Amino acid sequence: MNELFGLVEIIGSLALAISGALTAIRNKFDGFGILIIAFVTAIGGGTLRDILLPNREVFWIHNTYIMYAIIAGTVIAIFLRNKHQYIYKPLMLFDSIGLGFYTIVGVGIGISQGLDAIFCILIGTITGTFGGVLRDILVNKAPIIFHKEIYATISILGGGMYYILTYTNLQVVAVKFIPITFIILARLVVLKFELSLPSIYSKEEN
Amino acid sequence: MNELFGLVEIIGSLALAISGALTAIRNKFDGFGILIIAFVTAIGGGTLRDILLPNREVFWIHNTYIMYAIIAGTVIAIFLRNKHQYIYKPLMLFDSIGLGFYTIVGVGIGISQGLDAIFCILIGTITGTFGGVLRDILVNKAPIIFHKEIYATISILGGGMYYILTYTNLQVVAVKFIPITFIILARLVVLKFELSLPSIYSKEEN
Amino acid sequence: MNELFGLVEIIGSLALAISGALTAIRNKFDGFGILIIAFVTAIGGGTLRDILLPNREVFWIHNTYIMYAIIAGTVIAIFLRNKHQYIYKPLMLFDSIGLGFYTIVGVGIGISQGLDAIFCILIGTITGTFGGVLRDILVNKAPIIFHKEIYATISILGGGMYYILTYTNLQVVAVKFIPITFIILARLVVLKFELSLPSIYSKEEN
Repeated sequence: MNELFGLVEIIGSLALAISGALTAIRNKFDGFGILIIAFVTAIGGGTLRDILLPNREVFWIHNTYIMYAIIAGTVIAIFLRNKHQYIYKPLMLFDSIGLGFYTIVGVGIGISQGLDAIFCILIGTITGTFGGVLRDILVNKAPIIFHKEIYATISILGGGMYYILTYTNLQVVAVKFIPITFIILARLVVLKFELSLPSIYSKEEN
Repeated sequence: MNELFGLVEIIGSLALAISGALTAIRNKFDGFGILIIAFVTAIGGGTLRDILLPNREVFWIHNTYIMYAIIAGTVIAIFLRNKHQYIYKPLMLFDSIGLGFYTIVGVGIGISQGLDAIFCILIGTITGTFGGVLRDILVNKAPIIFHKEIYATISILGGGMYYILTYTNLQVVAVKFIPITFIILARLVVLKFELSLPSIYSKEEN
Repeated sequence: MNELFGLVEIIGSLALAISGALTAIRNKFDGFGILIIAFVTAIGGGTLRDILLPNREVFWIHNTYIMYAIIAGTVIAIFLRNKHQYIYKPLMLFDSIGLGFYTIVGVGIGISQGLDAIFCILIGTITGTFGGVLRDILVNKAPIIFHKEIYATISILGGGMYYILTYTNLQVVAVKFIPITFIILARLVVLKFELSLPSIYSKEEN
């Protein structure tokens, strides 16, 4: 169980590191710059979560495996870089995988600390999305999350689904992987069909 | 006393949430984007304070009332949004109320931790102003505090006033509300008459 | 020993405060704006370190000497401001001094917490560079560290040198000042000769 949990965290780190490194490469960052963006993208969400919650060490400070995953993700992204025209799709795929895995890790930690449902889901969403927010700020783009709010919505829905599933008799593996799969697929469907939430502004206001 | 303290925090949250949501609406953010900016504006200053000070939990993590205040502030702001031309003034009013209430909450927490006067006032200013700094960074404006330094100055003066008043025999309510009122009024007067501090640069330097 | 350590921290603060204030002056910030940038530049790196590591108070919260050093640095920078054409060089000098001193302080704290070598050096680099990153973000420039990656590289090399030297029989003073001197000189040589690391991009990719 704990091993599974650790594995989820490492897969999330790897996916977000690749997503961060690919973004840095699109912006023509060099060597260490790519590594720094990969690192910040991979650990940003979980780090903010661990800073906000009491009695938690920052999750990566004694976990060299996560560092190796980030370095591996950076190297993979650098090797893929020549396929410039193909970068957008894998970037979105890895970003979605990271969103799914990290949201569920975050909600689980909120539950283990006995937080109210609303805060469990909030912590999950922070864990899943904040690394990408930092990534976008550091490469000087407007954070995707503020313009594609469906991104946060999917994280919230998947986190809520996980919270409810923990009250069922389903096996632990299913309880985790059903909402993770939901988040990844929902994100990809939204991207594929360019869906968006209805605007609060009427036409006259625009 | 503790109830009063909690009330001050909730009024500050509500005012800053409205200020954040109105800013997001001015920048044409949608749905969750508005809620996120309201949330970050309302809790940013107090959260940085609680992270910087030892032995403190982040103040909102077990307080659902603050979450309700933020959601209420967001809804109020969305309903006011059609009065576009009237948004600037209430935005400044709520921003000033938030500055006043939160500065005093922050100084009070510094005193309760036995910090030196200079750090109590610094913590108060961080509590009062940092949510607004984050709000401005997230909507990609230069933070108001760096260009309207009179903003920080008023927070520092009001915080110092509160620190001194705690050594007097005044009633607790007066000790809190005199500096809060000072901050709100001073801010509004400064805005009304467009006052600014003298520049350090001579004309030749410009 | 502890006194020496405290002195290193104060010299680092002073140098980074001057660097921050000079940057703010170059960007025509006024009064408190200059002080805020000086403060954030001086304490940003160490503050992030203390937030990330367990069981640490933020280093400046009970240390008024550091506040005095920051105020002194700000005043010095304001008095130097008329020598506009000469600001760039001292800015780089003080920035390099701050990088050297703070990197070594950070690595030392990582060692005292029993972290793995890779994390000691990472914490040292964060301590040395993050104040400058915040400074650049706040004056709305792209952080120097992402474009001049040699900056981070020097911090990493100096931090690694210090880590290794702690296993030797050298005197404590030498163990600290050899890598500090290396970092300062390496940074200045890199600036003087405008050195940069080789790019990962081939000519066709650009």
